[in-house]
Amino acid sequence: METGGTGQRLFLEDLAIGRRFAAGPVRISVEDILAYATRFDPQPFHTDPTTTGHPVLGGHSASGWHTASLTMRMITEALPLAWGVVGGGGEIAWPRPVRPGDTLRIEAEVLETGRSRSRPGQGWARLRVTTLNQRDEPVQVLVTRLIVPCRLPAPATS
Amino acid sequence: METGGTGQRLFLEDLAIGRRFAAGPVRISVEDILAYATRFDPQPFHTDPTTTGHPVLGGHSASGWHTASLTMRMITEALPLAWGVVGGGGEIAWPRPVRPGDTLRIEAEVLETGRSRSRPGQGWARLRVTTLNQRDEPVQVLVTRLIVPCRLPAPATS
Repeated sequence: METGGTGQRLFLEDLAIGRRFAAGPVRISVEDILAYATRFDPQPFHTDPTTTGHPVLGGHSASGWHTASLTMRMITEALPLAWGVVGGGGEIAWPRPVRPGDTLRIEAEVLETGRSRSRPGQGWARLRVTTLNQRDEPVQVLVTRLIVPCRLPAPATS
Repeated sequence: METGGTGQRLFLEDLAIGRRFAAGPVRISVEDILAYATRFDPQPFHTDPTTTGHPVLGGHSASGWHTASLTMRMITEALPLAWGVVGGGGEIAWPRPVRPGDTLRIEAEVLETGRSRSRPGQGWARLRVTTLNQRDEPVQVLVTRLIVPCRLPAPATS
């Protein structure tokens, strides 16, 4: 498992299928949850630390989009892509709530890569990025497609 | 197109296929972009307003997760679900960048609904939420599955 911070800049050719990256942990405080929720997801089960009994979430929890935002921060730390981490989207799932005081970390794995057919010098990589809490339980699973530069031009085809 | 704010609380039975909701516009300033990016996506094409020439993004742009966060805020305004807006995840795509000064709005449409097989009184709704800029160009397309309560128990089956 690699953790970035080596000064290396990664290209498509560096992203072998199965290569893994990690970052974190980061602690999410009740103040963090309130600051994000007030701005972006002002629902009582995120903005009120005394909330109880929500039929799905139970007690006070972080917005899923807050977890996604913290995950993005960790992805930028884990994955030193030469063009930065630029994605076109992906699939996201939140299998369980994030609670105040949880510490989150990510594990990322390269699932698939390819070269762009229309843009020479450009490729893509599909990664699964799992965000885990302090009990190693997944709180978010993101499968994302990132745009990555190629170090070398595509081999000529005859 | 409906815009929330009626005091109504919506249940599964209210979410007819094709029913549409809207919210916004909200303006995204350069300060908004910097505040979010500094905290969650500290890459130069988000944190430096003078950035130019990124091969994919061009100039200064908002983090896609910032767009997702603003979209969540608008979803909470548009969609007065009885349990609040609680989702298990979805698919997200960012077809073009968001720039400082853009104004964003959402259009949401109910695609599909169903009752939970395992939890009586609970159902789900799949919605497409499109985030558009001031030129009516989509900057984000989210297809999300929300958990929604039923107003009435399921009809007895013989």
